[in-house]
Amino acid sequence: MSQTDTVAKALRSRGPRKGTTSAQTRLDLLNAASEIMIAKDSIDFSLSEICLRTGLSAPLIQYHFGNKEGLLLAIIERDAARAVAQLDALAAMPTSADRKLRMHIEGFVKAYFRTPYLNRLLHYMMASGDDVAKRVSDVFVKPITVFQKNLLDQGVAEGIFRPIDPMCFYFIIVGACEHMFARRCALQHVFGVDAITDEIRRDYGQAIMDLVLQGISTGRS
Amino acid sequence: MSQTDTVAKALRSRGPRKGTTSAQTRLDLLNAASEIMIAKDSIDFSLSEICLRTGLSAPLIQYHFGNKEGLLLAIIERDAARAVAQLDALAAMPTSADRKLRMHIEGFVKAYFRTPYLNRLLHYMMASGDDVAKRVSDVFVKPITVFQKNLLDQGVAEGIFRPIDPMCFYFIIVGACEHMFARRCALQHVFGVDAITDEIRRDYGQAIMDLVLQGISTGRS
Repeated sequence: MSQTDTVAKALRSRGPRKGTTSAQTRLDLLNAASEIMIAKDSIDFSLSEICLRTGLSAPLIQYHFGNKEGLLLAIIERDAARAVAQLDALAAMPTSADRKLRMHIEGFVKAYFRTPYLNRLLHYMMASGDDVAKRVSDVFVKPITVFQKNLLDQGVAEGIFRPIDPMCFYFIIVGACEHMFARRCALQHVFGVDAITDEIRRDYGQAIMDLVLQGISTGRS
Repeated sequence: MSQTDTVAKALRSRGPRKGTTSAQTRLDLLNAASEIMIAKDSIDFSLSEICLRTGLSAPLIQYHFGNKEGLLLAIIERDAARAVAQLDALAAMPTSADRKLRMHIEGFVKAYFRTPYLNRLLHYMMASGDDVAKRVSDVFVKPITVFQKNLLDQGVAEGIFRPIDPMCFYFIIVGACEHMFARRCALQHVFGVDAITDEIRRDYGQAIMDLVLQGISTGRS
């Protein structure tokens, strides 16, 4: 069965939620999968590893998520829901556009730092055929682009940002924020950095903020 | 056999070059593989597709490259050699650092535009165990970081660039330049762009150049 087929099957067969206990089981399974991906630094895990970690049975996983792809999609949806809630809160803050942009970049870098599997997971799911790619785009990518478009408009209205194409801006920001985390091998072999410490993460976020904020500024503040 | 094992085997068993005819055969095989990856927009191809395209036999591929991983590594080495030659020429130009940086960014975006498989290929090979990751880092990543370090030093010495950490700069630039090409799915589903035209590629490169050049400038020119 192709990756597309298995993911499509997962989309169809995911079980419904059933009260608190069932919701908690679902949450435990999602958390276990996240923890395993972080510990292994890979999205390559088996359902039996989840069973071992949670003490829950494989049919329970099947009931909640259909299969591994369904579980991965549920993780993306959960992480997306958190990210979108943060974006909504940031958008609603009575703060200038440059401060919001700094917080947006910092939040992005922190998200890649905390969930290093996110990047590979998104890549994997986006390659899983049109239905899944569209769904991932809808829950994860579109809310970010809407937030950024409004932020850029706010900055231009405040006279502190020069106009920039929102599509180009999206790819520049996301590409810059995720790249250090996506290429840990280069980090190790070229720069001799074995692990991304909290200090490196902070310095990287700061470098992106400084470059982007100065790069988009009209010189007025 | 794991991906690591097959690549390690490929590294050991690649055949030597033998005069012009053999070198030409090798070149034909590399070009055929590139063309297939561009046509399929995937690095997922079989050796029999190469045989079909070139009229050459599978044992010839084995003689030159050992196996598919050896062929992929040879493509990276060929593309790296071209890129490094361009970087060397750019470094040697009697031109100001800001103009060189513009040309560097433009070259990067053009490379991802022309060889969209490059990104996925590098990812795949970097995940193929330490030996291969180190080799790919040595031929592809290190020369870029050395070039950028010298360019940043030149700009600071000319008084036109503020200091920036070269490691952060590397990840920001490469991440920004490749991201639109690495996430064609998002481009399609979120922005409704089915194919990256020459115009989109040019606009994207220009947006990166403007943001980075203004972002790193001291305000003097």
